[in-house]
Amino acid sequence: MNIQDSIIFFMEILGTIAFAASGAMVGIRKRMDIFGICVLGVVTAVGGGMTRDVILGKLPSALEKPVYVGVSVATALAIFILLYIKQDLLSGRLGTFYDKAMLGMDSVGLGIFTSLGVMSGIDNGYPDNTFLLVFIGMLTGVGGGLMRDMMAGEEPYIFVKHIYACASLVGGICCVWLYRSIGRLPAVFIAAFVVMAIRFLAAHFRWNLPHPKTLS
Amino acid sequence: MNIQDSIIFFMEILGTIAFAASGAMVGIRKRMDIFGICVLGVVTAVGGGMTRDVILGKLPSALEKPVYVGVSVATALAIFILLYIKQDLLSGRLGTFYDKAMLGMDSVGLGIFTSLGVMSGIDNGYPDNTFLLVFIGMLTGVGGGLMRDMMAGEEPYIFVKHIYACASLVGGICCVWLYRSIGRLPAVFIAAFVVMAIRFLAAHFRWNLPHPKTLS
Amino acid sequence: MNIQDSIIFFMEILGTIAFAASGAMVGIRKRMDIFGICVLGVVTAVGGGMTRDVILGKLPSALEKPVYVGVSVATALAIFILLYIKQDLLSGRLGTFYDKAMLGMDSVGLGIFTSLGVMSGIDNGYPDNTFLLVFIGMLTGVGGGLMRDMMAGEEPYIFVKHIYACASLVGGICCVWLYRSIGRLPAVFIAAFVVMAIRFLAAHFRWNLPHPKTLS
Repeated sequence: MNIQDSIIFFMEILGTIAFAASGAMVGIRKRMDIFGICVLGVVTAVGGGMTRDVILGKLPSALEKPVYVGVSVATALAIFILLYIKQDLLSGRLGTFYDKAMLGMDSVGLGIFTSLGVMSGIDNGYPDNTFLLVFIGMLTGVGGGLMRDMMAGEEPYIFVKHIYACASLVGGICCVWLYRSIGRLPAVFIAAFVVMAIRFLAAHFRWNLPHPKTLS
Repeated sequence: MNIQDSIIFFMEILGTIAFAASGAMVGIRKRMDIFGICVLGVVTAVGGGMTRDVILGKLPSALEKPVYVGVSVATALAIFILLYIKQDLLSGRLGTFYDKAMLGMDSVGLGIFTSLGVMSGIDNGYPDNTFLLVFIGMLTGVGGGLMRDMMAGEEPYIFVKHIYACASLVGGICCVWLYRSIGRLPAVFIAAFVVMAIRFLAAHFRWNLPHPKTLS
Repeated sequence: MNIQDSIIFFMEILGTIAFAASGAMVGIRKRMDIFGICVLGVVTAVGGGMTRDVILGKLPSALEKPVYVGVSVATALAIFILLYIKQDLLSGRLGTFYDKAMLGMDSVGLGIFTSLGVMSGIDNGYPDNTFLLVFIGMLTGVGGGLMRDMMAGEEPYIFVKHIYACASLVGGICCVWLYRSIGRLPAVFIAAFVVMAIRFLAAHFRWNLPHPKTLS
């Protein structure tokens, strides 16, 4: 593994940890048992990438190499133990801790997996199809979180949090454009950072997209 | 593109518009923002076809050509603008407008995609496997609407609306039979029409299938 | 078909019947009509195997051969007729009948499909990748029930029933180990039995895994 592959792999693991943590946190809030929390962590972390690989027609890398599932389970267990010991992190004066940690973990995962999804499309023979690359980047980015929310019976983050799929879309476009102009590594880093920056700014300034006030 | 391919393509776009509109309408009723409405429109319009292509082992056509996602987004935006301006279409005396438009859009999409799903099975090397063709037609027809309802947290139309999957099943069988006896184009048209006719008749005459009155 | 293939096929049909019955029972409890009940039976019975085949990159066997869908529909219809005639099975003094039958059907399906999922991974060219085999076994085992619960809007069994995915995990590991030491047929039988035994013991002795008492 050369240095570039090592850095990409490190990013993959970072995204896996972030998404697994977000899955475990949803599982804990839904009062699941320890195994359910691990399952939800694994689904969130590997769900988007598996969907991408199946669509691109290759064996999911999460199935080939145990490292992704292993890291996900370890992360979910760590979150479980942390919140088992310090249960006040979920409630009372510290109640906002959950929301902030969730936003952070989910945004890191969204950014990294959007970038890596674009790279996967490039590596699998579609370097010139901009539309496909952006689409597959979004699928990879939002897929895991969407499965997490649907399995846990939560309203999907993608519909609830403003500027969610939108951040992934902007990041995907950046990633394709940067890949063509300045190369792979800067594209992955900058695009992932752009997604996170958009989400944090949106959360901080409470950006809203227009929506109709309807009577249901 | 010869004339037959052009007509089939026109049907695809028509089905895409109808399903995207149904997705956007559900999104609006759930008070999603403009991006969520577009996402739900795209998922409804391309979800069934992508599932079909993945099962048949080919790259989804919605990923290859941007036209389907483009048309879906344009449709969702148009529906959003329409209902943003004329919000009374969703409520009060006009409240039934929503139900009727939803029935219409969803039935047009169901009919067209059932037919096109059967054709896709035929074109991908299974012209003689009647069972596979009907099954893949149903999957293509009901897939997008099912994803729409599950993502939006609605009870799936397929279980709520009587004669829904049933209409798709009858349409799929018609389509296979007509393809073998009178050719591709008439099969697509007549089978799509049969599905829509069954659904409109079922809605108008309030047909019901038997179901047990259970105590939950 | 030699004797070993016949026995494996018999197991497949048994698992299909068990899962189709569990799907039909959920459909009946949700007061679906007869077609919805059949759809839910089919999805539960073939959903896990189709996901597995798509991930392994082959055409789903449920699409190639009509027997699985046929058996699922017949099972769902039989359950429907049984509960249509004897509606008191669902309520009153006999209310626990539903829970017990559901546990039985779901456990039989979980056990058999976990084993058969492992075998499918072995037959598709990954006999040495223990991790992949156990993972694909779990996916096949829990996939159908998960789709059933998500489509029906129930909280997924996998999160609600303790020792559910866990039983499948233990069964998958047993299956891989037994396959390598004593051969295919004993591995399938013993591993399926292990899954069922764990689930029945867990239900009988009310085994629980630790879970944090959080404030939602």
